[in-house]
Amino acid sequence: MPEPVVGTPNSEFYQLESGVKRDVKLRHVVESQQFTVPLLMELFDRARGMERVVARGGSLDYQNRIMATLFYAPSTRTRFSFEAAMHRLGGRVLSTEHAHAFSSEIDAEQVEDSIRIIGGYADVIVIRHHQEGGAKRAAEVSTVPVINAGDGNGGQHPTQALLDLYTIFRERPLNGLSVAIIGDLEKGRTARSLAYLLAKFERVRMFFVSPPELQMRRDILEYLDEHGVHYEMESDLNRVIGEVDVVYQTQIRPERARIVNRQQFAIDSTVVRRMKTEALILHPLPRTVELDKSVDDDPRALYFRQARNGLYVRMALLTMVLENR
Amino acid sequence: MPEPVVGTPNSEFYQLESGVKRDVKLRHVVESQQFTVPLLMELFDRARGMERVVARGGSLDYQNRIMATLFYAPSTRTRFSFEAAMHRLGGRVLSTEHAHAFSSEIDAEQVEDSIRIIGGYADVIVIRHHQEGGAKRAAEVSTVPVINAGDGNGGQHPTQALLDLYTIFRERPLNGLSVAIIGDLEKGRTARSLAYLLAKFERVRMFFVSPPELQMRRDILEYLDEHGVHYEMESDLNRVIGEVDVVYQTQIRPERARIVNRQQFAIDSTVVRRMKTEALILHPLPRTVELDKSVDDDPRALYFRQARNGLYVRMALLTMVLENR
Amino acid sequence: MPEPVVGTPNSEFYQLESGVKRDVKLRHVVESQQFTVPLLMELFDRARGMERVVARGGSLDYQNRIMATLFYAPSTRTRFSFEAAMHRLGGRVLSTEHAHAFSSEIDAEQVEDSIRIIGGYADVIVIRHHQEGGAKRAAEVSTVPVINAGDGNGGQHPTQALLDLYTIFRERPLNGLSVAIIGDLEKGRTARSLAYLLAKFERVRMFFVSPPELQMRRDILEYLDEHGVHYEMESDLNRVIGEVDVVYQTQIRPERARIVNRQQFAIDSTVVRRMKTEALILHPLPRTVELDKSVDDDPRALYFRQARNGLYVRMALLTMVLENR
Repeated sequence: MPEPVVGTPNSEFYQLESGVKRDVKLRHVVESQQFTVPLLMELFDRARGMERVVARGGSLDYQNRIMATLFYAPSTRTRFSFEAAMHRLGGRVLSTEHAHAFSSEIDAEQVEDSIRIIGGYADVIVIRHHQEGGAKRAAEVSTVPVINAGDGNGGQHPTQALLDLYTIFRERPLNGLSVAIIGDLEKGRTARSLAYLLAKFERVRMFFVSPPELQMRRDILEYLDEHGVHYEMESDLNRVIGEVDVVYQTQIRPERARIVNRQQFAIDSTVVRRMKTEALILHPLPRTVELDKSVDDDPRALYFRQARNGLYVRMALLTMVLENR
Repeated sequence: MPEPVVGTPNSEFYQLESGVKRDVKLRHVVESQQFTVPLLMELFDRARGMERVVARGGSLDYQNRIMATLFYAPSTRTRFSFEAAMHRLGGRVLSTEHAHAFSSEIDAEQVEDSIRIIGGYADVIVIRHHQEGGAKRAAEVSTVPVINAGDGNGGQHPTQALLDLYTIFRERPLNGLSVAIIGDLEKGRTARSLAYLLAKFERVRMFFVSPPELQMRRDILEYLDEHGVHYEMESDLNRVIGEVDVVYQTQIRPERARIVNRQQFAIDSTVVRRMKTEALILHPLPRTVELDKSVDDDPRALYFRQARNGLYVRMALLTMVLENR
Repeated sequence: MPEPVVGTPNSEFYQLESGVKRDVKLRHVVESQQFTVPLLMELFDRARGMERVVARGGSLDYQNRIMATLFYAPSTRTRFSFEAAMHRLGGRVLSTEHAHAFSSEIDAEQVEDSIRIIGGYADVIVIRHHQEGGAKRAAEVSTVPVINAGDGNGGQHPTQALLDLYTIFRERPLNGLSVAIIGDLEKGRTARSLAYLLAKFERVRMFFVSPPELQMRRDILEYLDEHGVHYEMESDLNRVIGEVDVVYQTQIRPERARIVNRQQFAIDSTVVRRMKTEALILHPLPRTVELDKSVDDDPRALYFRQARNGLYVRMALLTMVLENR
């Protein structure tokens, strides 16, 4: 794996919508920390372009390129998002729905061999692995770019964080933003990955709203301390809901229900009434009780547009890693 | 979901093989009742055209269009039929083999959210849902056309009924037809959907052949009564087999075997000898004991051609729903 | 199924790298015995051509053709290899990951019906069946070419054997070759299929290295005796490892471990040191304890290139069976 490009937030790049310099290299996409602000801006600029490409009916530029989706754990929506992205670029797809269930053969220990073999068939591999670090192990041996589509509980889901950030970016300046991240933050891959990304911008304030037992883990908090990022830990949703520009709601899984009254962290039409008029409501979906359907018609509810943005961001990522081969 | 177009059987349309007016709108395909005779004739006319397209090697007209097959319950043949249809049109496919088995994530209760998200990736969604009414729920929230590929036991399977009817239409006038529908009619989706379609034609006579415990449910019978369609319920195959123009055989599942001696409703070379010389034998497949392989070489056996017709009818349907976006 | 073309090893064909006559017919690919030497040389000639096609970025010649992969038992790598081959030819794919698991509907007994139906949708069917003889049954009823991608334990896996042989062919003359085949030879599909193919060449010597309980079955040995092929059965790896030109290692599955100390047949850096300088090390993968990762960097280790060669050989096979329709 190449060295992650190191960079500092650069407000010059940040202002640009197009015309960004195309000299940033991207090979594997393993974790959200590896994205510098210039790289993010390059990505978002391309994603904007992809919105136009899709509106025109897609491209056929990649019709000789093959993407393999190697999903050891199933996720229909994430997989469809990547596969649609490749198809809208004109490319081709090799697909697994649940490689781990069918694995007398693909042993979890043998992910390295599988990756080396599949690298002989495909031009890029999108992997969802059931173990934390699975994507990193894949990237280390791969002869083609590897994109992490989620690894393990408590691992990362960087492309989700990228599309989350892109959704905010399309609506608000990222510098100076105040964001509440709510839910099971200890195990929540998307919450963790987003926190890393937001930390790269200036004067961002994060509020981690969760029962103490499910709060953000030390690794993230230390990272934020090191980078001088403002954050607060909170267990009462009411105390922050009226203050923030972005409400990023995530799931508390039913099996965690003995720890927490999930309803206490839920967003419904009553909670929404206390938000800023200009607030944005995001959720990586799927949802259960934590986000009531009565919120869907609120103009601040962006979660379906957020899912759609996944298409554009993944198209943009694919062009970046395929171009740099 | 738009109002189903209401129409009455129209023998003028019915006579036409081509040159049908193209002004009929079709958005979602949820149940066979929604098809009027003009819409059926439009569909069959297009299906004829698709036979020619496939003979010429297929089309590339839809190469920017994506179809998602969202199969909560597996059905390799139905899925392949739809996916081949999309490919023969030049289109692209997102595919699930068994979404329900892999559904920590895609909860049955959340089909609405999944549909809204996938509608951001695909241009048309083909859904097979394990619950009756699943396709209708999907259509109600979808931003793109939804096609029902079978929902629940006792639900509908309208595209199967359309290809069944098309297979008859290619061989015989539909008005005045006499049809035996045999098997587990209570739970049989394909039998139910076909009965609704046949009822739209003039002077059709239907014989429902089944043990009393597995007979057609009240909803269908009331529909036929309302529309003044002639039907008879019969438990002895022998009493109708020599009378009818079409024998539509369906499966009685093994788990129903305690209710019925399945062999009693089986078609083999002995039964076939008592049929009209010009009769047609159809079966939606797969089969077990109810249709003996000795029948396969009989020129009246149309079931493999019937399966093949599924390709043309589904191609035609896809062009209709994609055109009306 | 057409008669297998009968032929005898023909050193004239064998010398040619290109310019082979294109008059050899191939319809179904069921077992490795059906390949004559001229047919093998035709195939390998085309595979060489496919290496150049892929290097140029693939072809679009087959964009109207559909391949169905009907996998009753899962094998992600074999499936991906076939699907990538079809995509690199510009073609389209219908795919199953695990048809047998989802088979209330596709009953093992009904493979014949499924094949006849799918033959109405696809131009070629690649089948992996869980029962020995499954591919042959499919080929007997199919209206389109069928390719066996492995059937049953102890059945065949002819395309694996073809790519194994192609990998050797690219490096060494096949006539006069000395080959050790190691592992569970009784149940090993790939070992069995390769032995049949090697037997077609002149002065080949085979060493079957395995504990007596897992040795080659009588059917193969009789075939070799009939064709006057030299072979030896050996239970001590050390006695042959320094003698042979090719070491073909295969897996001994963990459930066989009570019969044999698997480590005794393993290849690691110590064993490798005793091989000829010009020896080739092959393995069909996936591997477990029988092939140590320390061997991967040895220039004689060809197994990842061997996997890659599967792409070219399968592309070549697809062009041969699709051309002869």
